[in-house]
Amino acid sequence: MTPDAIRALLEEVAQGRRTPDAALAALKDLPFQDLGFAKVDHHRALRLGVPEVIFGQGKAPDHLAAIARTIVERGHDLLVTRVDAAQAEAVLAAVPDAQHEPRARTITARRAQRPAPPPHPVLVVCAGTSDLPVAEEARITAEACGSRVETLYDVGVAGIHRLLAHTQVLRRAGVVIVVAGMEGALPSVVGGLIDRPVIAVPTSIGYGAAFGGLAALLGMLNSCAPGLTVVNIDNGFGAGYAAARINALGAREQGA
Amino acid sequence: MTPDAIRALLEEVAQGRRTPDAALAALKDLPFQDLGFAKVDHHRALRLGVPEVIFGQGKAPDHLAAIARTIVERGHDLLVTRVDAAQAEAVLAAVPDAQHEPRARTITARRAQRPAPPPHPVLVVCAGTSDLPVAEEARITAEACGSRVETLYDVGVAGIHRLLAHTQVLRRAGVVIVVAGMEGALPSVVGGLIDRPVIAVPTSIGYGAAFGGLAALLGMLNSCAPGLTVVNIDNGFGAGYAAARINALGAREQGA
Amino acid sequence: MTPDAIRALLEEVAQGRRTPDAALAALKDLPFQDLGFAKVDHHRALRLGVPEVIFGQGKAPDHLAAIARTIVERGHDLLVTRVDAAQAEAVLAAVPDAQHEPRARTITARRAQRPAPPPHPVLVVCAGTSDLPVAEEARITAEACGSRVETLYDVGVAGIHRLLAHTQVLRRAGVVIVVAGMEGALPSVVGGLIDRPVIAVPTSIGYGAAFGGLAALLGMLNSCAPGLTVVNIDNGFGAGYAAARINALGAREQGA
Amino acid sequence: MTPDAIRALLEEVAQGRRTPDAALAALKDLPFQDLGFAKVDHHRALRLGVPEVIFGQGKAPDHLAAIARTIVERGHDLLVTRVDAAQAEAVLAAVPDAQHEPRARTITARRAQRPAPPPHPVLVVCAGTSDLPVAEEARITAEACGSRVETLYDVGVAGIHRLLAHTQVLRRAGVVIVVAGMEGALPSVVGGLIDRPVIAVPTSIGYGAAFGGLAALLGMLNSCAPGLTVVNIDNGFGAGYAAARINALGAREQGA
Amino acid sequence: MTPDAIRALLEEVAQGRRTPDAALAALKDLPFQDLGFAKVDHHRALRLGVPEVIFGQGKAPDHLAAIARTIVERGHDLLVTRVDAAQAEAVLAAVPDAQHEPRARTITARRAQRPAPPPHPVLVVCAGTSDLPVAEEARITAEACGSRVETLYDVGVAGIHRLLAHTQVLRRAGVVIVVAGMEGALPSVVGGLIDRPVIAVPTSIGYGAAFGGLAALLGMLNSCAPGLTVVNIDNGFGAGYAAARINALGAREQGA
Amino acid sequence: MTPDAIRALLEEVAQGRRTPDAALAALKDLPFQDLGFAKVDHHRALRLGVPEVIFGQGKAPDHLAAIARTIVERGHDLLVTRVDAAQAEAVLAAVPDAQHEPRARTITARRAQRPAPPPHPVLVVCAGTSDLPVAEEARITAEACGSRVETLYDVGVAGIHRLLAHTQVLRRAGVVIVVAGMEGALPSVVGGLIDRPVIAVPTSIGYGAAFGGLAALLGMLNSCAPGLTVVNIDNGFGAGYAAARINALGAREQGA
Amino acid sequence: MTPDAIRALLEEVAQGRRTPDAALAALKDLPFQDLGFAKVDHHRALRLGVPEVIFGQGKAPDHLAAIARTIVERGHDLLVTRVDAAQAEAVLAAVPDAQHEPRARTITARRAQRPAPPPHPVLVVCAGTSDLPVAEEARITAEACGSRVETLYDVGVAGIHRLLAHTQVLRRAGVVIVVAGMEGALPSVVGGLIDRPVIAVPTSIGYGAAFGGLAALLGMLNSCAPGLTVVNIDNGFGAGYAAARINALGAREQGA
Amino acid sequence: MTPDAIRALLEEVAQGRRTPDAALAALKDLPFQDLGFAKVDHHRALRLGVPEVIFGQGKAPDHLAAIARTIVERGHDLLVTRVDAAQAEAVLAAVPDAQHEPRARTITARRAQRPAPPPHPVLVVCAGTSDLPVAEEARITAEACGSRVETLYDVGVAGIHRLLAHTQVLRRAGVVIVVAGMEGALPSVVGGLIDRPVIAVPTSIGYGAAFGGLAALLGMLNSCAPGLTVVNIDNGFGAGYAAARINALGAREQGA
Repeated sequence: MTPDAIRALLEEVAQGRRTPDAALAALKDLPFQDLGFAKVDHHRALRLGVPEVIFGQGKAPDHLAAIARTIVERGHDLLVTRVDAAQAEAVLAAVPDAQHEPRARTITARRAQRPAPPPHPVLVVCAGTSDLPVAEEARITAEACGSRVETLYDVGVAGIHRLLAHTQVLRRAGVVIVVAGMEGALPSVVGGLIDRPVIAVPTSIGYGAAFGGLAALLGMLNSCAPGLTVVNIDNGFGAGYAAARINALGAREQGA
Repeated sequence: MTPDAIRALLEEVAQGRRTPDAALAALKDLPFQDLGFAKVDHHRALRLGVPEVIFGQGKAPDHLAAIARTIVERGHDLLVTRVDAAQAEAVLAAVPDAQHEPRARTITARRAQRPAPPPHPVLVVCAGTSDLPVAEEARITAEACGSRVETLYDVGVAGIHRLLAHTQVLRRAGVVIVVAGMEGALPSVVGGLIDRPVIAVPTSIGYGAAFGGLAALLGMLNSCAPGLTVVNIDNGFGAGYAAARINALGAREQGA
Repeated sequence: MTPDAIRALLEEVAQGRRTPDAALAALKDLPFQDLGFAKVDHHRALRLGVPEVIFGQGKAPDHLAAIARTIVERGHDLLVTRVDAAQAEAVLAAVPDAQHEPRARTITARRAQRPAPPPHPVLVVCAGTSDLPVAEEARITAEACGSRVETLYDVGVAGIHRLLAHTQVLRRAGVVIVVAGMEGALPSVVGGLIDRPVIAVPTSIGYGAAFGGLAALLGMLNSCAPGLTVVNIDNGFGAGYAAARINALGAREQGA
Repeated sequence: MTPDAIRALLEEVAQGRRTPDAALAALKDLPFQDLGFAKVDHHRALRLGVPEVIFGQGKAPDHLAAIARTIVERGHDLLVTRVDAAQAEAVLAAVPDAQHEPRARTITARRAQRPAPPPHPVLVVCAGTSDLPVAEEARITAEACGSRVETLYDVGVAGIHRLLAHTQVLRRAGVVIVVAGMEGALPSVVGGLIDRPVIAVPTSIGYGAAFGGLAALLGMLNSCAPGLTVVNIDNGFGAGYAAARINALGAREQGA
Repeated sequence: MTPDAIRALLEEVAQGRRTPDAALAALKDLPFQDLGFAKVDHHRALRLGVPEVIFGQGKAPDHLAAIARTIVERGHDLLVTRVDAAQAEAVLAAVPDAQHEPRARTITARRAQRPAPPPHPVLVVCAGTSDLPVAEEARITAEACGSRVETLYDVGVAGIHRLLAHTQVLRRAGVVIVVAGMEGALPSVVGGLIDRPVIAVPTSIGYGAAFGGLAALLGMLNSCAPGLTVVNIDNGFGAGYAAARINALGAREQGA
Repeated sequence: MTPDAIRALLEEVAQGRRTPDAALAALKDLPFQDLGFAKVDHHRALRLGVPEVIFGQGKAPDHLAAIARTIVERGHDLLVTRVDAAQAEAVLAAVPDAQHEPRARTITARRAQRPAPPPHPVLVVCAGTSDLPVAEEARITAEACGSRVETLYDVGVAGIHRLLAHTQVLRRAGVVIVVAGMEGALPSVVGGLIDRPVIAVPTSIGYGAAFGGLAALLGMLNSCAPGLTVVNIDNGFGAGYAAARINALGAREQGA
Repeated sequence: MTPDAIRALLEEVAQGRRTPDAALAALKDLPFQDLGFAKVDHHRALRLGVPEVIFGQGKAPDHLAAIARTIVERGHDLLVTRVDAAQAEAVLAAVPDAQHEPRARTITARRAQRPAPPPHPVLVVCAGTSDLPVAEEARITAEACGSRVETLYDVGVAGIHRLLAHTQVLRRAGVVIVVAGMEGALPSVVGGLIDRPVIAVPTSIGYGAAFGGLAALLGMLNSCAPGLTVVNIDNGFGAGYAAARINALGAREQGA
Repeated sequence: MTPDAIRALLEEVAQGRRTPDAALAALKDLPFQDLGFAKVDHHRALRLGVPEVIFGQGKAPDHLAAIARTIVERGHDLLVTRVDAAQAEAVLAAVPDAQHEPRARTITARRAQRPAPPPHPVLVVCAGTSDLPVAEEARITAEACGSRVETLYDVGVAGIHRLLAHTQVLRRAGVVIVVAGMEGALPSVVGGLIDRPVIAVPTSIGYGAAFGGLAALLGMLNSCAPGLTVVNIDNGFGAGYAAARINALGAREQGA
């Protein structure tokens, strides 16, 4: 039941064509979202530049392509995550101007008009080259959600001077995403150097007692650097989305 | 906003004292449950004989006593679970006719009128005497929720003949709750003997590699007896509540 | 030793052709099930419409086909779960009218006469499209066991309004199966909306700290919604079987 | 070596009293933080209103009291977390105007001048009354770090309408902290209702397969609501600190 | 229904006072163990010298004392495991000649006549002095079950020569129980030195990553010494019982 | 240094050709096993009929074939476990009369003369047809180690009457091996029916929360049936070897 | 059998009073360690200054005191770890000049003459003040084993500049022990700064998902800094002992 | 900024061409490592003979080949670990004289001049032939880092005499690496026999409850042999690197 339908119902009551009791019964099981949720969602998409996001993993290529075409035809931005080669081929056939990033396993396409990005960039830091796919997923997601993004890659804690050499880059970021596998120590060090929000992303990189990212995850959750928050193992998308949402707060305040 | 408030609003529209648009705005953020959820809850309580349930663990004795008094004063049945001695003393001072079962750690009091119980009893089976507190919590909960309950205690699988000697009891039950710690094998055996719904309750009884009930929990989840469902470790309350809900289905159908 | 054999033995005693002591010796190791278990099983199959169920995983295609042919030749209904393509081909060659559902990985065939289904449907709810194979296994199992089934798919908790829009569907079910992976939160929400038995099925959908369904399993076991019971990860069959068994209680009471 | 010391050294070089090579040797092991880190820390404290924080657990009462006295004497704000009764008594004797919140296990004292709080409040939501100590630790920390805080307590997912009745409160928050034990499903539902940053705090509330908060932690990490980030089990301090840091971004942008 | 009752029933059939059909009906649900199980259990007790065993943990002292008195009054041997001081005092008051071993947490009393012990002793080996309570529980259980027992204590693998100095003792044993905590390596070494059955008992001795005996348990299960079998953590009783059962095989064969 | 070499050394001392001090020096680092261990091993092989055992997994086919050929050329019995098809082909080419059991993944060959088997058979019981590879590995190992073996397959606890119908078979065994996956409950039931040693083998059969055999392993370790011992997951070899070793005790006593 | 006994035996052979065959028989089961192991141990104690070490936890105070008195009476150095107050009182009564360090839970006493310590100190680094008990146990152990020890406490990674300010201290160490709880990241950073052996000690400090030191342990095992080795959680003794053993290598080479 | 650049800056100050304040500003963000870290690294490479190490796993063959070529062209030694066949082919095409060890999955090439190796060898001990790939990775790494290496393979604890026969080899080592899977008991035994540093490497060899090396890892961490340190599962590289670093201490002291 849409707001229009509710208004029509109320008009009938106003015109005496429906009794208050009959209207009450009709309203009783009113689906909640019809009262305006969809509109709110729409507002959010416009304001934050959040695209429609599809989790590609496990979806049939033709199915994925159809969803993607529908989205861009409605004039929405497109972000597909966790796509493999066959899926990418199908989606690019349907949306020829889309961008496929094999390393990040993403496909993006621009359709919507975007507001100006927040004043500070999101910074994506990663510990080793093996963490790049997750870091890139975070970067592309944050960009798709409307933030500018800078990157600082391959600055693991075992060579801490590489990180310390870039404190200027760290300090100009609005939000920092730190991606690390193995022992997951990098976010603690970064969190101690700056006073901006830090989102830690454990990756499944490692072997033996890394237990598929568990070691890095536990390390990040137990970080002694206050103000750190954590997302799921390999969840570059979640980190990028959260970072853009946080980064947009400043812009929103100014515009509010 | 209660149904009465909504009716009042609709009356205003009918009487022209409020425009449909103004009413629409008032309705837009209408809390969902005010459209009838409370009434549904009330109906359920009457039909199933479900009392108001309080999880006692960690609550201050005087706080608990105050809640209990309020419930019985409203004419509702009372069920408090996980009470210790100090809590029990406080509640009994507030509700002198309440029943305290120290082994099951429950307090109950009757106030509401109850429908006739479902035709078949809920049967609570347990493997060893150490499982009795959980079994008793299940028994008292199922009774408080309106079912008759029978029990078959101390029939562990290592002496399977003890169980097999009571197949008649097993077969006349409407729903069977099986409580077991250690290896948690009893529900599988019971589930193979009867065709009624079986709810398995792992207990934290055991030592060493029992890991606080984990062994029993995993055993029950992996049971080769189809039709078995499982609740949390030591969750006699959950099992008794679910069993009574299932057992009431038959009664409901007849009256529907 | 069948009941007939026991009767023959007793006849010999009655006729003085065998002494009571000799008969006692013969009875002493009497296999238990020969006293009537098989008959009970037979009764159950007729009353509940429970088919003969084969767990296909790991069985050789020709072996599986032979078992399936034997079952339908005896006039029993057939349900094979966890079949792959090669197994399906072999079974369909042996039982040409059987139905293969690739997504649910099931094969079914009807032979037996069925009683009327219980008055209320089993409702299968699932959180995301990735949970569909498990949800479909639950649906087909519950149908094979004699219940009508309705479905409510893709109503995850992150968009709670999608679920709330369908409360009518939820309320007309006799039993509800809720299938969810990732954090496994959907059963808690559903369990709070209705007063019917709810069976939760965790799926292995997710990545990282989902740990193959462990996160969803733990979430469901710890649900704060009372009356919820849980089955093994990805165990759509177990949920469908238990739901049909529970749903049949109402029908049975009426016919008893 | 402070910046002043470095300047002095450079003056000596300029005046020819020290050769460049000798200065190079003196600089070679220059401690990094002396180049300005301490000043940065100072700046941060002023700008964010972040107090000096002490983790009280395990510290001797008299030791704790001495640290606390030193902090307030330097004119800094004080926040002590995880204090027990004996520690609190000692600290209050040393800092008589400090505030002790037994439920949150915190002690706070105001000394520093604070900037105006960010325009939107931090909202702390919790699922059950047992989660209150953690929620209160988050609330007090966020306030001590300069944000206004609102609370929405006891709105668990099993009664989802209680939450839905307060969507207005949810929407006016700048950042939302969601505290939940047991299955930890509440953050997923909240994350689906609003577009602000959401920080999830699992608590160790529960029993059996809750495994000391593990179930809630895994549930939150696997949430299907994008944009959610997570902190350690029972880490109300970490959530409050991160939320205030995020919430201050808007204020900072305006003042920058 | 006892064998006597069955015989009476058959006599009635023989005398024509009951028809075969009526007898069949009476037999149909005959409890299985009444056909002779109890007698078998009795035989086993005589032949193996197995006493009645009570798991003391968690039982009320007076309850425990009553059970113990009943057992010895029936002329059975008594073995109570996991008793604490209060329980021991109560049992000793009821059975004054019973033996209490505080370190092993056992109480034993002799009543039954015993057959000669098997020709070879059970040998109990333990790694460190902290493992003694479990080793002693194993020793006392094996003795109570009719075997002679020798002990070889404090021979951990880090000083392998201590063990090698006692190969004569190892070789004259019929069955060897090896008790070890920490890394649990001792059974592997013992299993490589002798060709008798070896039962490994992990203990919860250790700290940190010993995880309450898990490390020792996994070590023993993965032993590269063939022929090793394992019991639960700290389960000295189970090991002693199994060892005596195995050790009695030789004696039985000779007498068979 | 062989016993012959030691004897030669001692002869030199006796003949005055080597001083006692020089002989002492030569003996000081005498390798331990040269004092007779190899001979003991040889004795064991003759007495128990234990073949030379090779763990095939991961070995190169030609390497495996060469080892196998060497063993049979020395006149020893051969047992290879965990062989795949390629390995089997290579071994059979080298030892043409060897027996390959694909399901059990074993190869055996007879060369040595064997003593008469122990008087009672080893009984291998298994719960489901999926457990057959492990059960067969146990059967072939026990046979290769000199015991007669009987089998009782497909008698899971969910149809307990199938097991109870075969109590005669259970009772005539000397040692019983029980193989089960999923919840691993069968050994508990068997252990309650008989008084012979029972060795439990968990298998990795199952899915979801079976966690690769962990559920069955924990179930067996926590069994309430005393006298049960356990081996590693899927370790049919270890169970068969231990069972034969135990079963040989009776025979040994008679011959000692 | 001591070397003297062997020599006596050989003398008998030389004198013709014992035949070579009789001597061979006597030697056959010669305990291995009697050939010189004890002497080796003695040598090691002198050369490394390793004291006799007693793990105090769980030992009776009087028992512990008796062991301690015996050790010092033999002229050996004493090191008791994990002592509580009652144990310390008893030991100090027996060995009045012993040193008790309550924080480290150690007691030490000097008796033996010591060689000069190795040229470089062992450095003990720890992350937070809560890690001090473990760090101190490491320090005292390394000193008792003959090394000089320096300490660098409270230099956690969240304030990395505190560590970087002390690189001179790090570089003059022979071996570095790094003690850290929570996320355990400090050893990775230290390992990247120096080229000396680094031993990492995880502590059980932390809460929630620290899981009693598991997070720190996994972090250290997965460290990306090569050359790092790890000991058990809270095992300051093991780290101190290993560090002293490593540190002594240099001294030994010079003296060899 | 290199030391030369700093000197140039200081020269400018000395010559009055730059004020002290301007120089201070230029120095303020001076990257830390430019103060000499690179030189230290260079020194370390020369002194320890540590090659440039590349972790090959997951890198593209052509990428890996390019890195390798660059390293040898700079005159550095090369060590690539975890290479597969395709990677090896590419690297050997780029560096034709490199050595590929397929079993150890390493590639090495010599370019740098090496100091004399430390006086004692590193000894690599392994338990079974399946552990060889990890043992060989350790051996090749230790050699590449400048130590001589001896090996003692296939000496598992179940045949402890095989190990004891080689005590001479054990005693002449400077550092011992012990590689073992399954129960991981070998390092404890070795650690009890010698007084040199022992580094334990758990391997993922085993099945069932070996849990991918977890059993061996826990066994080693809980070893009762003091002085043992542990590296990650299958981390032969880490063990070899640490062993060479430790072994070089002696050599360094002599040269210092």
